[in-house]
Amino acid sequence: MVAGVEFWFEFASTYSYLAAARIEALARSRDVAVAWRPFLLGPIFSAQGWTTSPFNIYEAKGRNMWRDMERLAQLYGLPFAKPSVFPQNGLKAARLALALPDGPRRAAFVKAVYAANFAHDEPIAEDAVLDGILHGLGEDVAALHAVAATPEIKDALRTNTATAIAKGVFGAPAVICADGELFWGNDRLEHALDWAARLDQGESSA
Amino acid sequence: MVAGVEFWFEFASTYSYLAAARIEALARSRDVAVAWRPFLLGPIFSAQGWTTSPFNIYEAKGRNMWRDMERLAQLYGLPFAKPSVFPQNGLKAARLALALPDGPRRAAFVKAVYAANFAHDEPIAEDAVLDGILHGLGEDVAALHAVAATPEIKDALRTNTATAIAKGVFGAPAVICADGELFWGNDRLEHALDWAARLDQGESSA
Repeated sequence: MVAGVEFWFEFASTYSYLAAARIEALARSRDVAVAWRPFLLGPIFSAQGWTTSPFNIYEAKGRNMWRDMERLAQLYGLPFAKPSVFPQNGLKAARLALALPDGPRRAAFVKAVYAANFAHDEPIAEDAVLDGILHGLGEDVAALHAVAATPEIKDALRTNTATAIAKGVFGAPAVICADGELFWGNDRLEHALDWAARLDQGESSA
Repeated sequence: MVAGVEFWFEFASTYSYLAAARIEALARSRDVAVAWRPFLLGPIFSAQGWTTSPFNIYEAKGRNMWRDMERLAQLYGLPFAKPSVFPQNGLKAARLALALPDGPRRAAFVKAVYAANFAHDEPIAEDAVLDGILHGLGEDVAALHAVAATPEIKDALRTNTATAIAKGVFGAPAVICADGELFWGNDRLEHALDWAARLDQGESSA
């Protein structure tokens, strides 16, 4: 049996960009399947009294994060450009991600939105940018927008955020293994996938 | 020429424990020298409006940190026990660290205090614990306490904290390379030392 992890991400999250770009290859090499789970950090941050990203609230922490992103992107060989607006509103993108079936089509869209935000400095809240991405991926733009606007998808995103909180998610990205073990951050991606792969071996030999 | 880094740490910091335990071997293998720089997070946190550790303020974040510490300690083969009091007051320990010359004696003391806090759950603010550590290391307990209580050492610790802030430190541990490049967290230890070692090569071949 193939092990599985849930990859919880928010489009405004810088380190989620790095993790989204890296997770497929790392998971494949460990025979781990990835479920792509968009959620919103806004309600989580609001509950902590934050009206914006903590990277904007705490200046030295924010300065370090941008420099760290530059260094890590270079290390990973990923394109990166500090966006002129941060954080960007990822609500529409998250609904569109949920309108796509989980799997390669959703993953491709998610990675393209992250690249738009953090490599090409494009406004991912705008239809023109999202439509361009969908079109480039060969998706039916009008049909997906229609699905993304349904109450079912809006509810699904609210439910995802509530589920994330219930599972202990407090930041993005987070990886949750089949046993409920939570790993926070791009820094824990390898650790989380190693954990998931070991779980699977335990199950197989039991 | 041997490259050098400054290792900035606070005794109450959980991830500083892991970094303090790991930095010497990682630095040695890269021919990088380590300067041990105690400072206090209290003034930094106060300036952000925090009266305790953010791991206590933000519950889900704190819960994840303790679990992460368990998992990382196991990965590194380090002993770990969640302390019954967190954070502990590291003021006296920091002054004693500064009373010892930077080098192996200070490093040994620092590592022993961290082990007392995060492996043996001992109250590191108490003289009995600190004296036991110093005695075990063959240090002159009374003489060191006398030095640690001088205005010079008290000033040195205040200056260290001010210097850390001026250099962009906002949390512990932090590693600062000779070019001023700052790396935050136990997670960046290898990256920081790789950076320092490359700097050194650049200088040698210039």
